[in-house]
Amino acid sequence: MKSIRVFCPGTIANVSCGFDVLGLSLAGVGDYMTVTQTATKGITISEILGQDLPLETTQNVAGVAGLALLEALESDAGFDIKIDKRIKAGSGIGSSAASSTGAVWAINHLLGNPFTTKELIPFAMEGERLASGVAHADNVAPALLGGFTLVRSTDPLDVISLPSPGELYATVIHPQIEIKTADSRRILKSNLSLKDAITQWGNLGGLVAGLYREDYELIGRSLQDVVIEPIRSILIPGFTEIKEAALNAGALGGGISGSGPSVFALSKGKDNALKVADAIRNVYEPFGISFDIHISNINKKGVYPA
Amino acid sequence: MKSIRVFCPGTIANVSCGFDVLGLSLAGVGDYMTVTQTATKGITISEILGQDLPLETTQNVAGVAGLALLEALESDAGFDIKIDKRIKAGSGIGSSAASSTGAVWAINHLLGNPFTTKELIPFAMEGERLASGVAHADNVAPALLGGFTLVRSTDPLDVISLPSPGELYATVIHPQIEIKTADSRRILKSNLSLKDAITQWGNLGGLVAGLYREDYELIGRSLQDVVIEPIRSILIPGFTEIKEAALNAGALGGGISGSGPSVFALSKGKDNALKVADAIRNVYEPFGISFDIHISNINKKGVYPA
Repeated sequence: MKSIRVFCPGTIANVSCGFDVLGLSLAGVGDYMTVTQTATKGITISEILGQDLPLETTQNVAGVAGLALLEALESDAGFDIKIDKRIKAGSGIGSSAASSTGAVWAINHLLGNPFTTKELIPFAMEGERLASGVAHADNVAPALLGGFTLVRSTDPLDVISLPSPGELYATVIHPQIEIKTADSRRILKSNLSLKDAITQWGNLGGLVAGLYREDYELIGRSLQDVVIEPIRSILIPGFTEIKEAALNAGALGGGISGSGPSVFALSKGKDNALKVADAIRNVYEPFGISFDIHISNINKKGVYPA
Repeated sequence: MKSIRVFCPGTIANVSCGFDVLGLSLAGVGDYMTVTQTATKGITISEILGQDLPLETTQNVAGVAGLALLEALESDAGFDIKIDKRIKAGSGIGSSAASSTGAVWAINHLLGNPFTTKELIPFAMEGERLASGVAHADNVAPALLGGFTLVRSTDPLDVISLPSPGELYATVIHPQIEIKTADSRRILKSNLSLKDAITQWGNLGGLVAGLYREDYELIGRSLQDVVIEPIRSILIPGFTEIKEAALNAGALGGGISGSGPSVFALSKGKDNALKVADAIRNVYEPFGISFDIHISNINKKGVYPA
């Protein structure tokens, strides 16, 4: 039977001033997934390495996303999924989105691409609905399309691929603490001042322009979040120290990845990203919290055969 | 003595989702100004055609902006200004900004360009301070730099020139009613919902991307203001009818120009902009309010010798 192995990228959602709209795809952090066509209608998940996650199709985001795709096609095809999970669940770098998008991309590929990659987004969003209760596109859009993506609107869905300047590198620290999604949502205020909103959309405009112009200085000046970060960062021990260390080491800017606990910094060039990683490591070790650090350029391809 | 005549463009500030950050410069609407070097230190205003505005230097935005520039240079130079005012005061298409920017651009030119055009923005902003009490850059930035401009930040000032797709045309209706600046400010709410703010910055991101991609459909989808327009439009009789007529006639989108009362629509191509003008004229005549309609492409040059 036909089979394909794919790389399922980690992603950073809520990129600084782009809360709920801007995400990016990582090259150096992701899962691997092998999808094999079977003779039996439906989806089975026969193996998950690296994480303790449900094998039951309807309880697994990859299964749910894949089923949504098959249903839309009214397909009688069957697929088995094996997942080599390398992104930790709850890390804030799109673990569930990696699985959802890998499944729909691979199944669509094995079926001869009845859908464009962009058209796969709503199916992958069904995986997010299972994972978090909300069918959001913040992680699945960059995971599928690669690079930076802007979710201009969710109803109707309107996702725009933005350019990714080639020398942009992310340094991501994942402090191994648990932040409950419910807590990270509840802590947000439902209102904000017009003044802060203007600052935020000015920065988002600057960031989008910076990506088009490949203007790293402008990207850096625009990576400011005056709305969400001041609130959510309270839930991340050492956030202030991490960010300060990153900026002092030459990062362009940074913020909370997704709803945390991971924190990211963007830098121009791999050398700078490595220096930023060293600075973060030095400042975070005294906290006594286990952590991983990833250094990665931007993945422009999204999910791809690997 | 040296002399120059310049075109001082009208401008649209608060372009839809870009409240307080996004402006554009008009090609077909503007003042003319003649600035002549004199032997006496300081600035005189010897003639204003078309409007009843103060000739006293410190009471006129052109005078104040010019003096700010001369002061920064510690210059002993003197200049006389004659203004052919074609933009009506209080129209919402940058009448004061046209005068402020024309003065500083022409004086800087006659002095051999000690400042870059971008560096002139803060001097022109002093004219805005006189006109409205606030030294804002929303109109003077596009008037000086041309095209679309993003004021990412005012403190420190950070203005970014954005591309202007060549087929973009503005249709502007100026209903001849007076809206007091104080009223148009007071009516705004100081808070908004996070949901609306996200919609707004998603649209701003989409609009900036649309300008870079020359994607007229995306520009159109992004020209939505869910924050300011629903409130300020109450002050403009017939706003809803104007906007509906424009969209039905094929406009990409539109909104309030500045703080009104002018209303603008953007269209792809001059023919469409003319159709939009006809549709607006037809729907507005029954209101019994005098009005002007301007059809203009985007002025990419800003202030220029004319």
